[in-house]
Amino acid sequence: MTKSTLLDQLNWRYATKKMDATKVVPQDKLDVIIEAIRMTPTSSGTQPFELIVVTNPDTLAEIQKAAGDQAQITDGSHLLVFAAWDNYTDDRIDEVTDLNVAARGDLPMLNAYYDNLKSNYVPRDAEVNYAHAARQAYIALGVALVAAAEQQVDSTPMEGFDPSKVDEILDLSERGLRSVILLPLGYRDASGDWLLPMKKVRKSAETMVSYVA
Amino acid sequence: MTKSTLLDQLNWRYATKKMDATKVVPQDKLDVIIEAIRMTPTSSGTQPFELIVVTNPDTLAEIQKAAGDQAQITDGSHLLVFAAWDNYTDDRIDEVTDLNVAARGDLPMLNAYYDNLKSNYVPRDAEVNYAHAARQAYIALGVALVAAAEQQVDSTPMEGFDPSKVDEILDLSERGLRSVILLPLGYRDASGDWLLPMKKVRKSAETMVSYVA
Repeated sequence: MTKSTLLDQLNWRYATKKMDATKVVPQDKLDVIIEAIRMTPTSSGTQPFELIVVTNPDTLAEIQKAAGDQAQITDGSHLLVFAAWDNYTDDRIDEVTDLNVAARGDLPMLNAYYDNLKSNYVPRDAEVNYAHAARQAYIALGVALVAAAEQQVDSTPMEGFDPSKVDEILDLSERGLRSVILLPLGYRDASGDWLLPMKKVRKSAETMVSYVA
Repeated sequence: MTKSTLLDQLNWRYATKKMDATKVVPQDKLDVIIEAIRMTPTSSGTQPFELIVVTNPDTLAEIQKAAGDQAQITDGSHLLVFAAWDNYTDDRIDEVTDLNVAARGDLPMLNAYYDNLKSNYVPRDAEVNYAHAARQAYIALGVALVAAAEQQVDSTPMEGFDPSKVDEILDLSERGLRSVILLPLGYRDASGDWLLPMKKVRKSAETMVSYVA
């Protein structure tokens, strides 16, 4: 196989169980991770989610309570909360159109494309649209995990939390957002993490991949 | 900001609209992209999706018809189809448990963890479980986009297709799978792609990112 720095990074990273509470991710590394999330491609370029970066100790403690007391939320130095749009609306898609027109010019094709998107998306049930938006946040999660590994920053993706409580703690409903994933960032406590010495487990390529040639 | 090869890759890639049908992605680069998908972290390590690599011209032509005739499907040299589990079952989670036990030993903690997962997941509605599995495939999509860019391979993520038709073409239902995303791989036709000269459009960090400090 060709040499791949990415594969090295995917092997280096793991869902860190114990973070060193004394270590802080430096701003320049955090900026790369956030920029990678911002640059993540999404369906029709809508980028239908926001990122909330939480460092306030009281807020972190509250979120931790809504997430089964997982220690990484407060032992990490930054908590990334991915929050997806609760729905697609005309206004939200119009903003995307405006951004495209500002960058690429007022092309009839652009306006037609997003008019069509509006007529497809906006009448759908809010749950269907939220589910679609949440998937886009997961693309960004994949990219963020790589970005953190590239910066030698540890991270722990978490689905195990009460989304309605986190929405309340961060006032997300008022902003038309719903929390989807938590991603604490920090540094592994190499001596205290039971998972670190364990072998990484992945299915074989034979199990996961098939070919229609 | 710290130097980041990842950010360079995210800027290099774009949703290629016109691929050069004469160029073929070499096997060693394809292998890196597939390996990155295999190494992608997923919720509880279930890896609840499979990857189908399609190169058969007749199958590609059929899938293309089910995907609004998008040219990249046949102009690219390989089509990756991400297909998520249609449900979580006891058997599927037992296989994950077995794989973990084989790698890490027969730890009571492992068995208890996956027993708990089964009792949470299996009784849920199949649609809820499929939706959760599909999200995991999107993490792998994010990683695959980075892997392709690292290998200087072009790719075009596609949601615009009829999943039930693609499921039928690839006999996915019989395997308990549902098609989620298509990702043609190939090489951009730099002279024929209208999107290539256009500016990349992304929201500002101010729009997407907020802080609770």
